[in-house]
Amino acid sequence: MECICCKKPDENELISETKFWKVILASDQAYLGRCYVVLKRRGDLAELNDEEWLDFRELLKRLESALRKAFNATMFNWTCLMNNAYQNKPPNPHVHWHFRPRYNHKVEFAGLVFEDPEFAHHYNRVRKQEVSNDVKRKIVERIKENL
Amino acid sequence: MECICCKKPDENELISETKFWKVILASDQAYLGRCYVVLKRRGDLAELNDEEWLDFRELLKRLESALRKAFNATMFNWTCLMNNAYQNKPPNPHVHWHFRPRYNHKVEFAGLVFEDPEFAHHYNRVRKQEVSNDVKRKIVERIKENL
Repeated sequence: MECICCKKPDENELISETKFWKVILASDQAYLGRCYVVLKRRGDLAELNDEEWLDFRELLKRLESALRKAFNATMFNWTCLMNNAYQNKPPNPHVHWHFRPRYNHKVEFAGLVFEDPEFAHHYNRVRKQEVSNDVKRKIVERIKENL
Repeated sequence: MECICCKKPDENELISETKFWKVILASDQAYLGRCYVVLKRRGDLAELNDEEWLDFRELLKRLESALRKAFNATMFNWTCLMNNAYQNKPPNPHVHWHFRPRYNHKVEFAGLVFEDPEFAHHYNRVRKQEVSNDVKRKIVERIKENL
């Protein structure tokens, strides 16, 4: 599987870019607005420098604010795992954050209904909602308008 | 259930404390060295100031380094979720990070065996390994020696 971090995002997926990070919409939108925040260089979380670390915090603030405005997201889950990188020998970790907006209400958008039946509980990795390129583009546009 | 963030940790649990954060060992040691990194004040992740944010990064580095030395941890999962806080009305989020060291090998310590059968995959929240106060104290001591 191609590394989501190294792959060049297409325009349906790219939400934002800073000097150090890029934000890419996930294909699975079980949590509407789910995306990856990817460090542009290879590296380990503990090796981030001050500039990269503070830039990430600014991006986190902007993303949370944008998702509240775009879809009235209630709260947010952030995870930095990188487990899959250890399926390779040698491992090839590439810092990225998983961002899952969470909702205490359903959202209708682009002709679809997005729900969060696990709200206030741990996210469910089994429940998936794959969306078309057209819907991805609309979600990306809506988030960008609010960034 | 008492908030793990507000509860005063007992000496079997407290690993470290900085100006802004405290590190508390979890009772569930399914991932040996699992702990919580808790902001001392109430607040939202997006509201952390530069000092708190950079202090967290330093603590993250020190903890990862300590767990590599203490138990030869292979890599680490970091999550900031706060879902449970939204089971209360009004919600009472309190910034804390879940820290799970991950292992590509089994570790024998304090007469117990710790394994990570999900290594290189997402952590398993169902598999639990509750340990006694005595074992917690030994784990905390070993981590502190390496901090």
